[in-house]
Amino acid sequence: MGKRGFASDNNSGVHPAILKALSDANVGHAVGYGDDEWSARAINKFKEHFGNNIDVYFSFNGTGANILSLKTLSCSFNAILCADTAHINVDECGAPEKFTGSKLVPISTPDGKLTPELIKPHLHGFGFEHHSQPGMISITQVTELGTLYTIEEIKAITTLAHEHGMYVHLDGARIANAAAALNKSFKEFTVDAGIDVISFGGTKNGMMFGEAVIFFNPELSKFAKYYRKQSAQLYSKMRYISTQFLAYFEDDLWLKNATHANKMAGLLAEHIEQIPEIKITQKVQANGVFAIIPEELIPILQEEYFFYEWDENRSEVRWMTSFDTEEEDIVNFTKLIKQYFDK
Amino acid sequence: MGKRGFASDNNSGVHPAILKALSDANVGHAVGYGDDEWSARAINKFKEHFGNNIDVYFSFNGTGANILSLKTLSCSFNAILCADTAHINVDECGAPEKFTGSKLVPISTPDGKLTPELIKPHLHGFGFEHHSQPGMISITQVTELGTLYTIEEIKAITTLAHEHGMYVHLDGARIANAAAALNKSFKEFTVDAGIDVISFGGTKNGMMFGEAVIFFNPELSKFAKYYRKQSAQLYSKMRYISTQFLAYFEDDLWLKNATHANKMAGLLAEHIEQIPEIKITQKVQANGVFAIIPEELIPILQEEYFFYEWDENRSEVRWMTSFDTEEEDIVNFTKLIKQYFDK
Amino acid sequence: MGKRGFASDNNSGVHPAILKALSDANVGHAVGYGDDEWSARAINKFKEHFGNNIDVYFSFNGTGANILSLKTLSCSFNAILCADTAHINVDECGAPEKFTGSKLVPISTPDGKLTPELIKPHLHGFGFEHHSQPGMISITQVTELGTLYTIEEIKAITTLAHEHGMYVHLDGARIANAAAALNKSFKEFTVDAGIDVISFGGTKNGMMFGEAVIFFNPELSKFAKYYRKQSAQLYSKMRYISTQFLAYFEDDLWLKNATHANKMAGLLAEHIEQIPEIKITQKVQANGVFAIIPEELIPILQEEYFFYEWDENRSEVRWMTSFDTEEEDIVNFTKLIKQYFDK
Amino acid sequence: MGKRGFASDNNSGVHPAILKALSDANVGHAVGYGDDEWSARAINKFKEHFGNNIDVYFSFNGTGANILSLKTLSCSFNAILCADTAHINVDECGAPEKFTGSKLVPISTPDGKLTPELIKPHLHGFGFEHHSQPGMISITQVTELGTLYTIEEIKAITTLAHEHGMYVHLDGARIANAAAALNKSFKEFTVDAGIDVISFGGTKNGMMFGEAVIFFNPELSKFAKYYRKQSAQLYSKMRYISTQFLAYFEDDLWLKNATHANKMAGLLAEHIEQIPEIKITQKVQANGVFAIIPEELIPILQEEYFFYEWDENRSEVRWMTSFDTEEEDIVNFTKLIKQYFDK
Repeated sequence: MGKRGFASDNNSGVHPAILKALSDANVGHAVGYGDDEWSARAINKFKEHFGNNIDVYFSFNGTGANILSLKTLSCSFNAILCADTAHINVDECGAPEKFTGSKLVPISTPDGKLTPELIKPHLHGFGFEHHSQPGMISITQVTELGTLYTIEEIKAITTLAHEHGMYVHLDGARIANAAAALNKSFKEFTVDAGIDVISFGGTKNGMMFGEAVIFFNPELSKFAKYYRKQSAQLYSKMRYISTQFLAYFEDDLWLKNATHANKMAGLLAEHIEQIPEIKITQKVQANGVFAIIPEELIPILQEEYFFYEWDENRSEVRWMTSFDTEEEDIVNFTKLIKQYFDK
Repeated sequence: MGKRGFASDNNSGVHPAILKALSDANVGHAVGYGDDEWSARAINKFKEHFGNNIDVYFSFNGTGANILSLKTLSCSFNAILCADTAHINVDECGAPEKFTGSKLVPISTPDGKLTPELIKPHLHGFGFEHHSQPGMISITQVTELGTLYTIEEIKAITTLAHEHGMYVHLDGARIANAAAALNKSFKEFTVDAGIDVISFGGTKNGMMFGEAVIFFNPELSKFAKYYRKQSAQLYSKMRYISTQFLAYFEDDLWLKNATHANKMAGLLAEHIEQIPEIKITQKVQANGVFAIIPEELIPILQEEYFFYEWDENRSEVRWMTSFDTEEEDIVNFTKLIKQYFDK
Repeated sequence: MGKRGFASDNNSGVHPAILKALSDANVGHAVGYGDDEWSARAINKFKEHFGNNIDVYFSFNGTGANILSLKTLSCSFNAILCADTAHINVDECGAPEKFTGSKLVPISTPDGKLTPELIKPHLHGFGFEHHSQPGMISITQVTELGTLYTIEEIKAITTLAHEHGMYVHLDGARIANAAAALNKSFKEFTVDAGIDVISFGGTKNGMMFGEAVIFFNPELSKFAKYYRKQSAQLYSKMRYISTQFLAYFEDDLWLKNATHANKMAGLLAEHIEQIPEIKITQKVQANGVFAIIPEELIPILQEEYFFYEWDENRSEVRWMTSFDTEEEDIVNFTKLIKQYFDK
Repeated sequence: MGKRGFASDNNSGVHPAILKALSDANVGHAVGYGDDEWSARAINKFKEHFGNNIDVYFSFNGTGANILSLKTLSCSFNAILCADTAHINVDECGAPEKFTGSKLVPISTPDGKLTPELIKPHLHGFGFEHHSQPGMISITQVTELGTLYTIEEIKAITTLAHEHGMYVHLDGARIANAAAALNKSFKEFTVDAGIDVISFGGTKNGMMFGEAVIFFNPELSKFAKYYRKQSAQLYSKMRYISTQFLAYFEDDLWLKNATHANKMAGLLAEHIEQIPEIKITQKVQANGVFAIIPEELIPILQEEYFFYEWDENRSEVRWMTSFDTEEEDIVNFTKLIKQYFDK
């Protein structure tokens, strides 16, 4: 059994209910590629959460979901605007550029969140063929810095985008943590807020694998099935993703997991805030804590807990909590930190 | 529980040992993306089978494995030669062209197998910049028509390729069935036969998901890790692929499964051969049976068993067997067929 | 001054009227990228020939025109059907695959001409996401084998295509030779015959450089200007392409040049047909002659005249004539051949 | 005859010596695609300027030269660092991303010039497969803001790049203006300063069309010929580019043209500096002048002279001079400006 830690919510294992669902679906034959009963039911579950007018495509992973989202709603001559900290910009080895052929326009932000003010300077050159045409905006909710957009903030962005004939993608790798933190339904801060397509994450919140791309205007996604196949994201034994999503929605497992993870991050932040030598650098709004700590403390802590340095230049670290983080983890970890400063 | 059938070996479920392995790996935290103990052990298992001088990359699915194989060993100006029935040519919605930028050159064959004679007419234009440069040959073992290359046949192709500075990829979606049928080790008909890279399939032979790309000259694959990430095939919770491969190799599960599937196809062929009205169109050498049957019989059979028409123009069908095909399936299915002709 | 020959119609120089037009346009400043008076007038000239409902984009060369045509009317998951001898298939180093991301489906033909019968077997898998979706058919007029489609033959193909929701591209690198040979207007065998987009060639018929992509349904080409720029085919000093086209259409220079080239090929064929040892392999319908000649004769002729071997396996050569081929070239060349056989 | 102006150096026509060279080359037949005598001589001219150890590829235009340079020396998983004002970043409609598949990393600069300090924060993540691997740096000389790198500044960048295993591209659309302004040979600030590949521009300095990509390490460019063809930048009647370059180098036409253009910009700047209401925003080091002028003055001037607004937000304009700018143009233009302020 591996060392526990705060490296990433994908270092956690799989929730037992998910594992059971995999086992339950392991009966007999099923038609491949999504034409099975589990998949039909899973898509219905998504409709319960997002409304009936959606078009859903399961994918293996988050990068796969993102490139499918972006490719379906853009052309290669488009520019895709995003925060410079966006996963699509810094953590996907250029998969979006490779698969879409488009230019990514990274925008610097203080907190991982785009705003109309930050976006507007990039909304020019429309119709001017020398310039990649602004075509999409991609935001992440919860952001890569652990911060949250309010519904109003999202609406301000989608309104601006639509005024310019652009689409808005929401990278929801941690969308469950966002819903839990906002205490809102998925629908309220996505389709109702004007979002056109989301990557709906499962893997970081207790699933084994599997994400979903959800288009909110099926007119626009008629070719998505081909792009999914062409991007090698169509799973043959689809029932094993679908059954996970069924378990994920059953008894609000997604919400319990996310709420717990968020609570653990809050608890960690509470403990850390009591240590005057440490500066928390971003609002703790979901399941991540960003902090500047003494450089020499980092390897000391990493001996017992996994986590990543976020910005080496200023000794900033990132601590992620998960559905399986335990209070004891928090207590022991902060104890280690306090010991260092008490020396 | 779904209707049973002979549609595809990926309509089968997951072998219980695989499911158990997934459960066994579900303990505590593990570093993501392959830096975990299961992955290290799984790669060692591959080395036991293929020798130490290999470079292994797990992927989600077969198309992902194929495009990673091809991209790593080719440039966009290359041509990739394959049988016109190759999965990369007809079943991947153009993913190889999209990800590699290369031209696929489909070659017509009687049985899904390339030969030096079939390949040679396409080996021209070397150094002539107007022409896509022949750079790779891709063969499938077991072929998409259920036929097998002998080791000598493979060597003839790899020798020809290497004489022209080309690489050879082996699509091994059903490589276990090939090893079982040939009664040879994996190594003998791949690396020892001059193959440069293989897609090693697991999903069609009892795994839940997960394939492996194996390069036999690590000098050539130094960039493969970037291409895997860029193609959205890098799995975050990698231990859950690795643990499957560990179980797959344990007690030769892969061999038992493949041997059984092959045996079932042989049994099916035996029964079918006794029906004079049916013509088996390809040698039955692994786990697939291709046959021409009366057109009106097809829907009658499909009412009770899933399977696909292969070539509508001549009423040819494909029947695939799997690790979980039972003798009873064969008996009942052929009984249905006989009833039709006895009418 | 170089050796004369029959290698390609692009080995010829530039017609004096074209050169003069370049000089005439060299006055003062002009807005770049096509917003100049020459370009406006040149586009009007195209409208005189093809009707007003067209959308015209000039490009540098034929490959550029072809990839712009194909990209604008297809998606990366499409298949583009063409004769296996098509320039887009064998002479563009995979540029179409690279720029479109699509699969090219080469179809074997006896004479470089597609027919509904040859196309139909490839029109399957519509809606089936595993299969590259047949999206376009590309034909060449005059074909790469020097043969001609009749208007009826073109209509049969476009009708078939449109019935399947597909578009038809006509590669008109030698479209002037076709018009001259058919004795028809450009319009009659393109837009009136159901063609959706053409590459209109100028370089092989006396221009210095410059081709045009003409879309016959401007609704479909609204993004073409971006794709032209993104494919690096937008010329900054556009007036120097436009002025060439103006001269090309002036006094039917295009027609005179093409008629002459065709006549020269006819003359060459006449002479060759009198030599019983030589077999002409394709109908001589425009400005190319294909023939099988003794292998040892090839280098003897090449000492004095440039030309290419077409198919080494059967000692087949290609002789192209041009606007500047002279009767004396034909006479001297055939004299050389006759001398060989008279020995 | 068009309105004169300061819009772009490509609004100018073609130098008479270039036009004459085109005419002179228009004799008889020549082998296509560069195997002609003009091309051989033109490449030798480049060797006189850059040394013998170079590999030269002519292309149609600057975007074509840039994508060929970048593609040849990078892989799709690389990141290409450049100033955010770089032509490759803002004026090519995403052609670099589309053709290379790579990520462009735009870096904000005060004057269009990268420095080691600006670059260093982006040199991280080497070997980390989640991150596009920094692979190339592209600088422009003269920059898009009319400024110049000194030789030492270039060396600092190439040294840094090579320390990290990266290559440096120099976009030399205005390389002649740079050489003239620096009073240095091309060689001194390119190959001798550690540059790996350049786009050598001709069109903006009096040629009709034609640029050259020059690789300074032929080992690295062995595939460039295929990429040129695949990017549709291989010209069939190559002699007509080559003959232009011959004339361009003859009697240092390139230098005379560039020196004149630079001088005219200097003159314009001198006049403008005497107008206290106008602020020149960038050093005038070559043939461009950037200035902030009253917004209402812009359309007044544009009635008589073409030029572009550079930054609408602050009413900044760009005035480019060219080989054919006349002193009278400068005088009349500044007279117009002074009249405005004298009102």
